Amino acid sequence: MNRPEYIQERDGALWLTEVESDHLKLNWRLKDVLHVERSPFQEIVIVDTETFGRALVLDGVVQTTAGDEFIYNEMISHIPLALHPNPKRVLVIGGGDGGVVRECLKYPSVERVDLVEIDERVTRACKMYLPELAGKLDDPRVRTRFEDGVQYVKGVRNQYDVIIVDSSDPIGPAAVLFEEPFYRLVKEALRPGGIMVCQSESPFFYLPVLQNTRRLLNELFPVTRTYWAPVPTYPGALWTFTLGCLFDPFEDSGWICRIREKSTRYVTAELAVGSFVLPAFVRGALGVAE
Amino acid sequence: MNRPEYIQERDGALWLTEVESDHLKLNWRLKDVLHVERSPFQEIVIVDTETFGRALVLDGVVQTTAGDEFIYNEMISHIPLALHPNPKRVLVIGGGDGGVVRECLKYPSVERVDLVEIDERVTRACKMYLPELAGKLDDPRVRTRFEDGVQYVKGVRNQYDVIIVDSSDPIGPAAVLFEEPFYRLVKEALRPGGIMVCQSESPFFYLPVLQNTRRLLNELFPVTRTYWAPVPTYPGALWTFTLGCLFDPFEDSGWICRIREKSTRYVTAELAVGSFVLPAFVRGALGVAE
Repeated sequence: MNRPEYIQERDGALWLTEVESDHLKLNWRLKDVLHVERSPFQEIVIVDTETFGRALVLDGVVQTTAGDEFIYNEMISHIPLALHPNPKRVLVIGGGDGGVVRECLKYPSVERVDLVEIDERVTRACKMYLPELAGKLDDPRVRTRFEDGVQYVKGVRNQYDVIIVDSSDPIGPAAVLFEEPFYRLVKEALRPGGIMVCQSESPFFYLPVLQNTRRLLNELFPVTRTYWAPVPTYPGALWTFTLGCLFDPFEDSGWICRIREKSTRYVTAELAVGSFVLPAFVRGALGVAE
Repeated sequence: MNRPEYIQERDGALWLTEVESDHLKLNWRLKDVLHVERSPFQEIVIVDTETFGRALVLDGVVQTTAGDEFIYNEMISHIPLALHPNPKRVLVIGGGDGGVVRECLKYPSVERVDLVEIDERVTRACKMYLPELAGKLDDPRVRTRFEDGVQYVKGVRNQYDVIIVDSSDPIGPAAVLFEEPFYRLVKEALRPGGIMVCQSESPFFYLPVLQNTRRLLNELFPVTRTYWAPVPTYPGALWTFTLGCLFDPFEDSGWICRIREKSTRYVTAELAVGSFVLPAFVRGALGVAE
């Protein structure tokens, strides 16, 4: 197993250097390197970090860790699923680690979750090394397809109640998932009354991405809202998610009750409501009143 | 000017290595090192980072940056000041950078802010290099004393409406600011109806500190509450603050209106309310219902 160049031994310990930007790097001390593999799409590494336990690393960027994945995965899943009055069919694009699927399955109305991940090897590695994330992928309600998310949604019309775009950063293969043609296809893949959500990055590090995402969804959907959560392992900490809704799910405040009793570690009904209250500088940057 | 060992030149650029723990390090690319000084208490460094602008660094730990200081400083100041119906005298312990004082002065009822900072050199360096933080220290309502915060509060009884403990991490000189005798003195320094607040660290990296702080304040004060904010430059991102109140300021929900029109960049009235809604795992760790 060839160790990638961003994992080095120093002072008798293994360190992973994550390049957050040209100007900021994070050094994670590792207990172990569990898996290294080059797929047709990216370099897939699973490490065991001292700070947050096992982590999935793609092309040197930490995507998720056992220690804090629950914040991101709960927030990108429970908010749209609770907002939809009766979600039966859910599509997850990206999200090959399985964390989002796990959360979706907590909603009894959900009959089927389609996971469309471009890289089969990511899912295979997560099944082996991160079972707490990928363990529910064998649930009979789940169908996993390994193909390009954009190509997949081109072929579907009017099929999903909720679509969750769990993408990596808008560089490389995931860049198309932040563009207008893709969002238009996602809208067409929704059933009437459907809801889509995408991660829309940090307002500190990627403000133009957030602004652009919000603008594009505004043009396509009658109701668009941005919410946020603190994600310790992502640069900028304050992470945003943006919803596009084919109806106004906020008219019925009963949605927050649907989060109760879902065995979550981060989100609660009250926190779900609070997550839509944006910091003043984000509100200003988006030009919205929320 | 001798550069400290945690600032090194690599690949033609200056990098500051911040040791978050034995297991996690952050590398900040610097535009410049503006100031290096050893005071009787600590090594004081002011750098200009590429990511968050100028930063105050004490003994190698980034304390505050121009780019994100507003989140922490607004949250530790506006919440207690808005909760108090008529704060006239405010004590800030630590906080020599002046950021908390700046926020306190936004409340017209405040007649006097006493800043007690142990290290005169910190304040002097911030006045010179971080005027956006320290610029209001010359306001006639502010009196700055350079002495040990514990010694100072030993001598005062029944004098302050609000006391803000803006400490560094509970290692080295600030450790006493996390202990029972200090909190007892702070309580005695409050006027009837007074409110104190302290930063109580990250539940990811310092959960026992948060739990202990909450427990100690619970024993001393009739009403104790914990609230939180995302601080990008602090490890764990999700940062907590804990209040000790001599009365129940939450009985009157009008407090949130007092945050309005205060020219803030992070906190809003709605966000202030939301900041008291704790993530499920924090609620569980504290054994509270909020």
